[in-house]
Amino acid sequence: MTTLDTPGTPFAVVDADRLDRNASRLRDHLRGLGVPLRLHVKTSKCVEVAERVHAGGPITVSTLAEAEHFADAGYPDILYAVGIDPHKLPRVAALLRRGVTLTVLLDTLVQAEALTRFAREQDLRVPALVEIDCDGHRGGVVSTDPALVEIGRVLGGNLAGVLTHAGESYFAYTPEALRQAARNERDTAVAAATTLRDAGLPCPVVSVGSTPTAHAATDLTGVTEVRAGNYVFFDLVMAGIGVCDVDDLALSVAVTVIGHQRDRNWVITDGGWMATSRDRGTQAQAVDQGYGLVADLRGDLIPDLVMTGASQEHGILSTRDGRPVPELPIGTRLRILPNHACATAAQHDRYHVVRGTAHPLVEATWSRHRGW
Amino acid sequence: MTTLDTPGTPFAVVDADRLDRNASRLRDHLRGLGVPLRLHVKTSKCVEVAERVHAGGPITVSTLAEAEHFADAGYPDILYAVGIDPHKLPRVAALLRRGVTLTVLLDTLVQAEALTRFAREQDLRVPALVEIDCDGHRGGVVSTDPALVEIGRVLGGNLAGVLTHAGESYFAYTPEALRQAARNERDTAVAAATTLRDAGLPCPVVSVGSTPTAHAATDLTGVTEVRAGNYVFFDLVMAGIGVCDVDDLALSVAVTVIGHQRDRNWVITDGGWMATSRDRGTQAQAVDQGYGLVADLRGDLIPDLVMTGASQEHGILSTRDGRPVPELPIGTRLRILPNHACATAAQHDRYHVVRGTAHPLVEATWSRHRGW
Repeated sequence: MTTLDTPGTPFAVVDADRLDRNASRLRDHLRGLGVPLRLHVKTSKCVEVAERVHAGGPITVSTLAEAEHFADAGYPDILYAVGIDPHKLPRVAALLRRGVTLTVLLDTLVQAEALTRFAREQDLRVPALVEIDCDGHRGGVVSTDPALVEIGRVLGGNLAGVLTHAGESYFAYTPEALRQAARNERDTAVAAATTLRDAGLPCPVVSVGSTPTAHAATDLTGVTEVRAGNYVFFDLVMAGIGVCDVDDLALSVAVTVIGHQRDRNWVITDGGWMATSRDRGTQAQAVDQGYGLVADLRGDLIPDLVMTGASQEHGILSTRDGRPVPELPIGTRLRILPNHACATAAQHDRYHVVRGTAHPLVEATWSRHRGW
Repeated sequence: MTTLDTPGTPFAVVDADRLDRNASRLRDHLRGLGVPLRLHVKTSKCVEVAERVHAGGPITVSTLAEAEHFADAGYPDILYAVGIDPHKLPRVAALLRRGVTLTVLLDTLVQAEALTRFAREQDLRVPALVEIDCDGHRGGVVSTDPALVEIGRVLGGNLAGVLTHAGESYFAYTPEALRQAARNERDTAVAAATTLRDAGLPCPVVSVGSTPTAHAATDLTGVTEVRAGNYVFFDLVMAGIGVCDVDDLALSVAVTVIGHQRDRNWVITDGGWMATSRDRGTQAQAVDQGYGLVADLRGDLIPDLVMTGASQEHGILSTRDGRPVPELPIGTRLRILPNHACATAAQHDRYHVVRGTAHPLVEATWSRHRGW
């Protein structure tokens, strides 16, 4: 019988009750809006998580290695949502020839020309979405740019639609700012689709999404799918912008107390940045959570205790207000709640699965994929 | 014939010529000081790197998984330099029973008592160093703390010596500050050894080290071994404190240009924080290098270009002074020189090995260990 006291620390813990609750919440919300989910699996990179949240449904991936892994697990409809490097097209073709509907993304004429040439040479349709920039956050053409229609024409029969991602919604700190980001994301995607259709081009897919906008959206008319991934675990960055509460966080890292520096009011653990990642996503938020908040092994938060420092295999815990740290003897196990679930999960090869605080048993171990 | 144009990006590149040069430099320096190296393998976690630098020699590890991996590769003398969690002692014993000299570290009476009890029950000597705090950076007892002798007495025949690590040397920005950190590290370790010996306890091992102090030390009288690891690759943090030059950096990440945002003067690549890590170690230095400097595929720096932004699988390159970014067409491959080699290497499962700029061939692929 394995409990959270058994494995060697540090290790990743997933609370399956919280995961289920997070999954239900977005499922119900999107059902109310009448738009299907395309789960982004880049956060968990775990087939068991996808099965639980969205078994066999359409998914989004961040690497071709993920696409291959989830294709092996029987997922038939996969969107690779990073602008395509033409060098990667043979791997795309191999997946298409296996019968997987793999859709790629691009935002330049050069990529569209390379894809169309490749598809013709291979006698293959390579479905592609054009990335639309809705908030200046990253890639994409703006919906009024004449390049949009040019790219659409070059893609010809490979054109599958448009995609946008409200990256700036991660910096929206009020409910109204989140709703506005969701409206803008939807409006921009629909405007781009209209531009293509007005030019006589097809646009069956109108894809939007991010965890914040997926939850904040109130009207997705004209949108055909919503992408979200982080929400299965949530994290302190998401709690900081108000998309979830701290007690929705389904991912944590179990660590052990290995020392004290009482003069400096420090507790030292065996969980450093190798276990939590270097992500300091809350640094720019109203409340800087350091490298994460600290809970006991059952998952109950220890008030005021924060992971304030990290070297490779050492974590430093201290209190926000300088009050003495609680008595945590050598050997005490704790759980660190992370800033950024995608980055913290990436440091681990497996998840130890528990169900809420009532059951300290490790019910399963789920493996996590990695690489490119 | 594999060149750096062949593998799918992003991937890690090691320049073996630079690695060899870095290894020779410290080897020669320590030979001059008459003190042997105990290579820290936590940076590369790669047997081929250790073989090249220090074949079969004594090593330092940051996890028991590393200890087991290097024991399998034939390394007989291993120091696990993170304070021991008593829960981990059975894995330590398994290595000792295989004939590996595995030395552990501790700095509390609780750990010393647990270790001594365990060693007695197992009828095994478990060699332990007492961690000494030389600069308030992390763990350890100060050399004048009566706890040092108490811990030594509790350890009895398991006591193997003392260890200190000048963690603050990573924030020493002048040659004199580096030399001072090295002097302080040596003096503190020797003082602690003297304290133990004056109390009638043995102290055969006096272990010091960090990459900055290993290079800056001018006198290591009384020290029996020097630990260093980062220097095999070096990184922008080490260049920022003057321990190396940028052209000593042996680790980089190959990425591909996948887009441009000309209005924002951005080049977008397929190498995000998943490939570089979230480490922003130069943020606090005189010159903030963002997520890293940018070189062409041969390794020649592209002046003024910096990786200024990162999402999971996207990197943003822009210029420091706002001058237009150079023309880098879609599909161009580049190399990112990282802030922190330990963190960047940890994002990869293998290294693609080249020899300097004259040979773009990938001569070998070396695998990297991970986990705990």
